[in-house]
Amino acid sequence: MRLIGKDEIEKIAIGAAILGTGGGGDPFIGKLMALQAVEKYGPIKLLSPDELNDDDFIVPSAMMGAPTVMVEKVPSGEESIEAFQILGNYFEKEITATMPIEAGGVNSLIPFALAATLGIPVVDADGMGRAFPELQMVTFYLDGINASPMVLADEKRNTTLVKAIDGMWTEKIARPITMAAGGSIMNAIYPMTGKQVKDSSIHHSLTLEEKLGDIILNSKHPIDELKAELHAIELFNGKLVDVSRHTDGGFVRGKVIFEGINDYAGSKSELEFQNENLICLVDGKPKCITPDLISVLDAETGMPITTEGLKFGMRCIVIGMPADNKWRTEAGIKAVGPRYFGYDMDFVPLEELNKEEA
Amino acid sequence: MRLIGKDEIEKIAIGAAILGTGGGGDPFIGKLMALQAVEKYGPIKLLSPDELNDDDFIVPSAMMGAPTVMVEKVPSGEESIEAFQILGNYFEKEITATMPIEAGGVNSLIPFALAATLGIPVVDADGMGRAFPELQMVTFYLDGINASPMVLADEKRNTTLVKAIDGMWTEKIARPITMAAGGSIMNAIYPMTGKQVKDSSIHHSLTLEEKLGDIILNSKHPIDELKAELHAIELFNGKLVDVSRHTDGGFVRGKVIFEGINDYAGSKSELEFQNENLICLVDGKPKCITPDLISVLDAETGMPITTEGLKFGMRCIVIGMPADNKWRTEAGIKAVGPRYFGYDMDFVPLEELNKEEA
Repeated sequence: MRLIGKDEIEKIAIGAAILGTGGGGDPFIGKLMALQAVEKYGPIKLLSPDELNDDDFIVPSAMMGAPTVMVEKVPSGEESIEAFQILGNYFEKEITATMPIEAGGVNSLIPFALAATLGIPVVDADGMGRAFPELQMVTFYLDGINASPMVLADEKRNTTLVKAIDGMWTEKIARPITMAAGGSIMNAIYPMTGKQVKDSSIHHSLTLEEKLGDIILNSKHPIDELKAELHAIELFNGKLVDVSRHTDGGFVRGKVIFEGINDYAGSKSELEFQNENLICLVDGKPKCITPDLISVLDAETGMPITTEGLKFGMRCIVIGMPADNKWRTEAGIKAVGPRYFGYDMDFVPLEELNKEEA
Repeated sequence: MRLIGKDEIEKIAIGAAILGTGGGGDPFIGKLMALQAVEKYGPIKLLSPDELNDDDFIVPSAMMGAPTVMVEKVPSGEESIEAFQILGNYFEKEITATMPIEAGGVNSLIPFALAATLGIPVVDADGMGRAFPELQMVTFYLDGINASPMVLADEKRNTTLVKAIDGMWTEKIARPITMAAGGSIMNAIYPMTGKQVKDSSIHHSLTLEEKLGDIILNSKHPIDELKAELHAIELFNGKLVDVSRHTDGGFVRGKVIFEGINDYAGSKSELEFQNENLICLVDGKPKCITPDLISVLDAETGMPITTEGLKFGMRCIVIGMPADNKWRTEAGIKAVGPRYFGYDMDFVPLEELNKEEA
């Protein structure tokens, strides 16, 4: 157990944008919510998963929907609290801790705001090790843990308790509720025992995010250090020459084109995203494929850039990182591999795709 | 209190199709479900609203969605029971009776199947006095009674407990859940006290339906007797020459054209429907406008024809009936009048529209 204060939250917010792989929402709003809560209620306890008791009752807290919408429809924090109360009442159990469902974006920080307000700890773990757009895209799903009973709560005080037969159906039902609420909503989801969290989650992702943030803020060679820390491979270095995006069914879909500079002069890179960066091609050849992680960094500072933040003329370094081994299984690739997202290609690990260059 | 057996259900099914004003779903499926339940559990108690205690706990049971879908996706009955159990658990109260939310179509009969199975009575009342397509289109809504907490349950055993701030928001959230479930779903909705049902519902609509069914089955001059019983006005008598319909956002929308025969020779009538018949024009002039009721009857037998059943060449008599006075208020017309459905016209009572001819 250690305490998370304002400094740690600032760092986690930066690291969250790297693991967010372009999506998961700009952590800025989550950061503001978390900082405000710490200001008011004091620092938050961060528990390592191995500190959990098997019969602890843990409920992750998250925002669902298109992050671009959330920027204009900032949650008050009351929504998450209400969602928690309804789920706690449903189980007639006290919720002992919360945690992020995804390591990346706004959802890394939302649990901190809630935890500070309720005086409960946050578990240093998540269900993705990155960000993904759908709620069944978590290691918990691979391990047969149901996303529901889950509660969705909007800022108007509409609440919905969904009890679906599995994570896929929870997604199918929760997504249109999110759309009806205006495109983003807060939820309490994947209620789990301490044992389930220990067995199924990706451990210490918040600590990793904090470390990444620390590198960016304090290192003299942030990009090199990030690459070392993340076992990352540099995929491209270039200037952003085109970006297109549209909101469709609650997701932000789009494509970015970079023209190479320095070692990459004369080359072209295409980046496909659906909320998150999913495929990176260089001169038409795949260099990194979901579930492996793709992040776009400012070439100068190493600061991560979300898909919303991508603008013409930016100088960027694109890096690829190996996904957690849970995602590189047959079940993992079926759930979040390129074919699930509609790309007609097989998953090949980042290391193999970049062998020649390595 | 009186008992409802198979004969009564047969009659109610016919009357329900008349008050269903073309929509509410073909009562056939509801009838089968009710007959089956009576076969197994015996006759069902029908309570007059004035027999209710003020603190009774009454929960209407209904099908939501496009009736055309339900024909291919027949509910097992388990859905309604599960929805009831979840809502009862939520309130920690025993549900003392059920009732239809609408007098018309399949939803007149679904409460009987549930009541027989659970051994509870049905209240002889409803919230529309006819059928309407959206769940806030009930007298309860006009009286400020919330549609939620409501429970939706599909045949896959997905359930959702919606708690929205009002009936409009309940509709906005429940509709896409219905779509996600494949277009039709069962629900437990508008939980009310006995006092609320007494004050806000339209009384004795099931008994009226039974009477209408009896007329059609046993009268020698069914159409004349129906007109007398319903204070109905004959709007048209003609041959169906064109019908178009499409399913859109969970609703069946369409238009029918009749060419006049006998007294109406040389005239043309257009009927607009959105699940239910909403506007009847004769030679371009409105003759009946929602919330007033429009039913299409077989010219020979007086049997009501739902919008799904309308086919080229049918000989039909179209009748108009005055809506319950609760619908002819300013609030009622705002909720279910022609402008709500997108027609650029004001509501004028049936009697006035047909004054010259009367």
